[in-house]
Amino acid sequence: MSRSALLQQPEAFLQRHIGPDETEQQVMLAALGLDSREALIEQALPPEIRLEAPLELPPALDEQAALRHLRGYAEQNQVWTSLIGMGYHGSVTPPVILRNVLENPGWYTAYTPYQPELAQGRLEALLNFQQMACDLTGLELANASLLDEATAAAEAMSLARRVAKNPSRCFFVDENCHPQTISVLRTRAEGFGFELVCGPLEQLEGLDVFGALLQYPDTHGEIHDLRPSIEALHARQALACVAADLLALVLLTPPGEQGADVVLGSSQRFGVPLGYGGPHAAYFACREAYKRSLPGRLIGVSRDARGNPALRMALQTREQHIRREKANSNICTAQVLLANIAGFYAVYHGPQGLQRIARRVQRLTALLAHALEQGGIRRLNRHFFDTLTLEVGGAQAAILDSAHAARINLRILGRGRLGLSLDETSDEQTVEQLLAIFLGADHGQDIAALDAACEDLGIPEALRRSSPFLEHPVFNRHHSETRMLRYLKRLASKDLALDQAMIPLGSCTMKLNASGEMLPITWPEFAHLHPFAPSEQARGYHLLIDELQRWLCAISGFDSISMQPNSGAQGEYAGLLAIRAYHASRGDGQRDICLIPASAHGTNPASAQMAGLRVVVVDCDRAGNIDRADLAHKAEQAGERLACLMVTYPSTHGVYEAGIREICAQIHALGGQVYMDGANLNALVGLARPADIGADVSHMNLHKTFCIPHGGGGPGMGPIGVKAHLAPFVANHPVVELQGPDPRNGAVSAAPWGSAGILPISWMYIAMMGPQLRTATEVAVLNANYLARCLGAAYPILYSGNAGRVAHECIIDLRPLKASSGIDEEDVAKRLIDYGFHAPTMSFPVPGTLMIEPTESESLEELERFIEAMLGIREEIARVERGEWPADDNPLVHAPHTLADISAPWTRPYSITEAITPSAFTRAHKYWPAVNRVDNAHGDRHLFCGCAALEDYRG
Amino acid sequence: MSRSALLQQPEAFLQRHIGPDETEQQVMLAALGLDSREALIEQALPPEIRLEAPLELPPALDEQAALRHLRGYAEQNQVWTSLIGMGYHGSVTPPVILRNVLENPGWYTAYTPYQPELAQGRLEALLNFQQMACDLTGLELANASLLDEATAAAEAMSLARRVAKNPSRCFFVDENCHPQTISVLRTRAEGFGFELVCGPLEQLEGLDVFGALLQYPDTHGEIHDLRPSIEALHARQALACVAADLLALVLLTPPGEQGADVVLGSSQRFGVPLGYGGPHAAYFACREAYKRSLPGRLIGVSRDARGNPALRMALQTREQHIRREKANSNICTAQVLLANIAGFYAVYHGPQGLQRIARRVQRLTALLAHALEQGGIRRLNRHFFDTLTLEVGGAQAAILDSAHAARINLRILGRGRLGLSLDETSDEQTVEQLLAIFLGADHGQDIAALDAACEDLGIPEALRRSSPFLEHPVFNRHHSETRMLRYLKRLASKDLALDQAMIPLGSCTMKLNASGEMLPITWPEFAHLHPFAPSEQARGYHLLIDELQRWLCAISGFDSISMQPNSGAQGEYAGLLAIRAYHASRGDGQRDICLIPASAHGTNPASAQMAGLRVVVVDCDRAGNIDRADLAHKAEQAGERLACLMVTYPSTHGVYEAGIREICAQIHALGGQVYMDGANLNALVGLARPADIGADVSHMNLHKTFCIPHGGGGPGMGPIGVKAHLAPFVANHPVVELQGPDPRNGAVSAAPWGSAGILPISWMYIAMMGPQLRTATEVAVLNANYLARCLGAAYPILYSGNAGRVAHECIIDLRPLKASSGIDEEDVAKRLIDYGFHAPTMSFPVPGTLMIEPTESESLEELERFIEAMLGIREEIARVERGEWPADDNPLVHAPHTLADISAPWTRPYSITEAITPSAFTRAHKYWPAVNRVDNAHGDRHLFCGCAALEDYRG
Repeated sequence: MSRSALLQQPEAFLQRHIGPDETEQQVMLAALGLDSREALIEQALPPEIRLEAPLELPPALDEQAALRHLRGYAEQNQVWTSLIGMGYHGSVTPPVILRNVLENPGWYTAYTPYQPELAQGRLEALLNFQQMACDLTGLELANASLLDEATAAAEAMSLARRVAKNPSRCFFVDENCHPQTISVLRTRAEGFGFELVCGPLEQLEGLDVFGALLQYPDTHGEIHDLRPSIEALHARQALACVAADLLALVLLTPPGEQGADVVLGSSQRFGVPLGYGGPHAAYFACREAYKRSLPGRLIGVSRDARGNPALRMALQTREQHIRREKANSNICTAQVLLANIAGFYAVYHGPQGLQRIARRVQRLTALLAHALEQGGIRRLNRHFFDTLTLEVGGAQAAILDSAHAARINLRILGRGRLGLSLDETSDEQTVEQLLAIFLGADHGQDIAALDAACEDLGIPEALRRSSPFLEHPVFNRHHSETRMLRYLKRLASKDLALDQAMIPLGSCTMKLNASGEMLPITWPEFAHLHPFAPSEQARGYHLLIDELQRWLCAISGFDSISMQPNSGAQGEYAGLLAIRAYHASRGDGQRDICLIPASAHGTNPASAQMAGLRVVVVDCDRAGNIDRADLAHKAEQAGERLACLMVTYPSTHGVYEAGIREICAQIHALGGQVYMDGANLNALVGLARPADIGADVSHMNLHKTFCIPHGGGGPGMGPIGVKAHLAPFVANHPVVELQGPDPRNGAVSAAPWGSAGILPISWMYIAMMGPQLRTATEVAVLNANYLARCLGAAYPILYSGNAGRVAHECIIDLRPLKASSGIDEEDVAKRLIDYGFHAPTMSFPVPGTLMIEPTESESLEELERFIEAMLGIREEIARVERGEWPADDNPLVHAPHTLADISAPWTRPYSITEAITPSAFTRAHKYWPAVNRVDNAHGDRHLFCGCAALEDYRG
Repeated sequence: MSRSALLQQPEAFLQRHIGPDETEQQVMLAALGLDSREALIEQALPPEIRLEAPLELPPALDEQAALRHLRGYAEQNQVWTSLIGMGYHGSVTPPVILRNVLENPGWYTAYTPYQPELAQGRLEALLNFQQMACDLTGLELANASLLDEATAAAEAMSLARRVAKNPSRCFFVDENCHPQTISVLRTRAEGFGFELVCGPLEQLEGLDVFGALLQYPDTHGEIHDLRPSIEALHARQALACVAADLLALVLLTPPGEQGADVVLGSSQRFGVPLGYGGPHAAYFACREAYKRSLPGRLIGVSRDARGNPALRMALQTREQHIRREKANSNICTAQVLLANIAGFYAVYHGPQGLQRIARRVQRLTALLAHALEQGGIRRLNRHFFDTLTLEVGGAQAAILDSAHAARINLRILGRGRLGLSLDETSDEQTVEQLLAIFLGADHGQDIAALDAACEDLGIPEALRRSSPFLEHPVFNRHHSETRMLRYLKRLASKDLALDQAMIPLGSCTMKLNASGEMLPITWPEFAHLHPFAPSEQARGYHLLIDELQRWLCAISGFDSISMQPNSGAQGEYAGLLAIRAYHASRGDGQRDICLIPASAHGTNPASAQMAGLRVVVVDCDRAGNIDRADLAHKAEQAGERLACLMVTYPSTHGVYEAGIREICAQIHALGGQVYMDGANLNALVGLARPADIGADVSHMNLHKTFCIPHGGGGPGMGPIGVKAHLAPFVANHPVVELQGPDPRNGAVSAAPWGSAGILPISWMYIAMMGPQLRTATEVAVLNANYLARCLGAAYPILYSGNAGRVAHECIIDLRPLKASSGIDEEDVAKRLIDYGFHAPTMSFPVPGTLMIEPTESESLEELERFIEAMLGIREEIARVERGEWPADDNPLVHAPHTLADISAPWTRPYSITEAITPSAFTRAHKYWPAVNRVDNAHGDRHLFCGCAALEDYRG
């Protein structure tokens, strides 16, 4: 290193992010018969899409410099007391949860629990969350979270249409729902072709609808008795959906007890930071009768091969990856990490603790309400939990000035009206401040005196909760911090996450989530901002978002970025809506056909149908590429109805298809647009740009390519890049108007910039990598090709491109082995657990295969360990083939093995050692799955999605 | 709860800290035949020492309020760029280490690795630290850390006296050592009766000494060739000790290669935050020949019962708990957590990374030196690594003003001289700023030009390091963050810490270390302050320290507190020194006898001898209490030589002795002082106060009673409380003069307020508990008595006090069982590991016993689990007694059991299930020790304390 270089770069983050060092890379290249990464890329990547210039990004910052830079942004955010409410409330993340969940890689680097045997810890956490939602809402079934309250409301509308007997296409939403919820409903209704009527509750009376959404308490704080509306809906065979505040439900008669069919809402105020809008988990509860129509993930109790209770995702056949355009929704990401936090918040506080919190918030609100009333300020909501809507007339400006001076944000409700919502962080001083703000410093009210004088106020007698909740032991035993800490540790120790081993999931890009990237998200300046706080308080966020948008444009080639979609699937949906709106704006409203290759992720067709598009599937050829003839044929057939092609690049077969530029041009020539699924963007960054290739719009999974951790199945972020002609058609927001998109556009997510709170992660990554992002891509391709090379002799590689090279992942074919031995891909997947690995993606996109994506962050050492495991398994299969082990009694079909196995009398034809420590690594570092192979069918037949049955299962 | 109470207290931290809730407490009280905690305390505690009034502490704050309050203090600290040097340097804790070690309870709640089978992870981390120290210093053996550089220097002096053949009582210290080091040496020399000569290096020539301390580079940055001095010392059969900068050693010829016998220093700049002085780990390396004289802990490689490599603390017979007043030193706490961080810093950076860091720092310094020279500023040190001492004459004031404006701290060296030290966080901008500060804004120097023009400067050719270092694979494979993260996780998963189970160690008070208490220590405002930064930059620290001192006075009854001792043992030593100085001030210099009961911790006599006191042991009676007659006799015998009584209260037998007030009065009547060992203060807080009882001085283990985590064997903090008459005699500091103590007093630790960086932990605890601290004490006593009650039938309780009650811990006697079955306390301790527990304290204070302290943080559920384990073990012993299992082949003697056991053919008379899952809890949550029982004798016979032999042991 030259002396100068020494001065400039204290330490490149690149070497921390990339798994194999230079020496290891040379070893791998040599095995491929190559002498440079460049040579590999020249073979693998079609030259016509190659980006010649380096990415136009600022030079990489070292980790500390990047943190300092971001600290500078953070300091430009101002954390005021935000009493704006509207579904977002100040909350306290208990430090034991903050440190041991949100800031702990054991939780945040985990993958979606598709392999339940190595995910019993987080599955139990999600079961707690579901139980909590059931208990608080008074309903029978709850899912494991949705993206946010507004999209949950939209899912409720869809569910209502699926199950309601009323054949209407009309849905009603109370105008006193939160405006962002109404906006997302409107957007979604348009896609589905529903009529959305938004008006005062009384209007419901005369409408023929398949369902309605009410809010409880409503956005202005009023608490309505839901029964009359619900009865009216039921009389019409329509569904009653209620968006409810989880903390209020601690004190209010649950909507379920009032007859509601679906109850949903945000769980943010259960210990999840505001994060300028997210990520937060929405809960979603409904009658059990709707279980097959329930959107999102559902955790259920089943049993394992030994008959012991075991958790897993239930009824997966509902989901988009199976049902495609017939799916209940396009949701693939839940908000697992945040749902876990909310569930743990309930575990830690328990029913008494939650009651204390809720009663305190309510009591503070009552005292404030009383004093304001005495001070002559008229309240517009008669009843209240934590929210007051006040008529202040001409004093509005002066009050806002005072609030400003006290660094308090109120909700501004047009001329003369103000709203405020207290929360867990409010105290007597907050009430004092508010009295001074509304009534002047000499208001003469004394809180203690008020408290002594003032009876219970606010909650109507008839709506006081009488039913118990959270009675399950899990909510009643972990209330000391020591117990809670150990509970969290015990759950985490059941699971296998990235902090222990490679998770080689094809298409999921489980790369390093660096600690330095994670640090800023819990800085108070990023964590505690209300999404509707005045933008001058969020300057730091805007500097960050603007810069990140510019960087993503540079990386993707697009002209602008919409940050609103808070998952990849949301991005797809938002992008397709933009395409539809673009066509409509040109008088091409009839363009409603979306061509999708057969190999596409199931999300693609599901998103297309949600956007009101008709899916036409395009065949793939034997090499796994799009069948160009069929594409031409289908596009031609579509004619004037051709809206777009939706294509993943590199393809889901893990190959850089050669004809992609031509294909895009072909679609454009026919008046169609190209939506490029960004799931595989990690194979392109720095090498090629979607927009240059021909995409008009593409989403970018910040949780795949840009290092936001998977969190056990969320959070995600799916911003979309669009070319200039589509920019006016992306989502806007009803509360915070965005620059760029048409102000009349609706929202696709609840918050203006989606899950803004995790954007610092991607910012840090790009800031620390700069133009060297390209190196990451090259190494990802190198790692994949090395794996393909080393596994190819034992397992056929299904698809490859030019010179036999794959892109960033490869598919191995297990069907021949199944034919010869009876061992299938599930056996291999479960057996990998015995070797200490999470399985690759199973049977997608081709049944009977495994898709393996190592990412650039895995070292040669770890790749070798994985190869050793796979070759070991191949040898085990060979023993079955040779008849040394029976087809129904061998370590593969019995995998994974547990402590229970070795505690029982051992009668198998293989040894305990062969079962549990099949490799040198496992002898030194054994991961023990908590359960044997889980019986999914049993669980789906005997659906049980609550906590109670698990009692004896817990220590 | 009344409505008002609801408003005032959002959530009491008390209920989070205390394990058993009210219901559980009632269950336990009922088992004891009592109806209130009050009734229990009335029985257990002698009425004459009972504190009637509540503690004079402010009302408890809830967790968030306490954090807000402390945040307010933090904001009054100012983090400037401190280039003061003197052994404290800016450093970067790599985020992956920050998050996964310093902020992870798996590391910070662990106990000292006395049970090696459940501590292989942190033992390996310490072995890395030792190997690093050996490699960088060029010596053969290094220990697992000492408290700080200054005390390590003092230990080097002691070691020198122990091993040097030269019989002199004179030790030389180069005047160019850091002033705090010289001060601590002087204090220590006085206690030992050594003559300490401090002067210029040349003075060494003519002196007859047993050793000398040199600094490399010296405090002013000069790099001396050590060889002439070392040869001169060796010629005199004296030892050459060198305090060396660890980062400089990356580039300099190691002192060991120049012949040094002992090399020591701080490892702070290897990734450990400054923390306003600590905690930091000192390293200490020496020739292997001195292994039996080495102070502190030493980790060595031995083998386990299966012959596999296993780590453990070596040569424990050197230590104070065995050798008492003949011990090498009184050290019991190391700085394990910080040593681990420093070792991991070396693992993560590796030799190349460290070279890059060191070369960069040196190069920046060289460019600065060159430019300043060109600018006409005279440098006083010819050679340098990172430190420059500059002659600035009359410009000093102006330069300091400029530095002030740039928020840079320089070292002020009397009139006309300034010093500065660059560090890992320095960059070109730092150099630019310094040039402007020293030469004016128009200095006309260009760094790039300088860099191009300027050759290697600073390090003398003859002293450039040529030997390789950190060649062991562990320092060469974990350089990507993913690898490092997994390495940390794998190590942590080998260990059992408080995050998994109760650690019922008598006298160690392993209570909850709450996350909320831990959060502030890594806030930048607390983490990044240099201990010698001007006090106006540390206002927040001083508010915190002053308040904590007041609180500790209120709790203990003392008049003032000295915060300097950074461990309990240091506190003892500092307190005894104060007693000696007090006597001397009154013309009672002859008072040199320290009475110590036979039951005392070994540290007590070791501390006494270090303070120059003669230890006279006082017998205990059969009830475990001080033999009053013997005490009277020994005190009388001592006569005018009686200096003090050193007594632990409640006694190490876990009982509140009744006569303590009388005993203290008796000593006072004879002109003696009373030193009360505060190890058991957790049994007194809120119930009685040491000063009221009669103590004149007492240390308080903030890492026991006040929630600083044990960190796997450090950090600790041992401030002492003194009555007013002793206040002038406690430690002062040569760099930062303290208010209160005589300014002529020397230091006992390197930093003015000891390990200030962890004081926020104890501040948080007391702030959140307030007067309710008393409840914690009561519950600690309740838990101990409940355990004694439930275990008493199976294992005799050795000692109890009034009404058969113990205090906060109890001793169970295993000697009868050994007689009947051959099973001893070690077997029981190791068998507890199979049950998922850390053993209680073994064979202290009575051989053949276990001392159990549950603390207030353990719930009834966890106590029951422990009781179940102990009763299960008792039944296992019964089977041996009955001859069902052979005495040499049963689950007790083979404990703990490992994966290796069950992988081997199973031929034992008990089942695998009985071996590994002896309880319901272990079937659900199994902790697996990484090794079988460790053979200590083998390891001590074949001492090996480095990394190499472990290679095949790692995965």
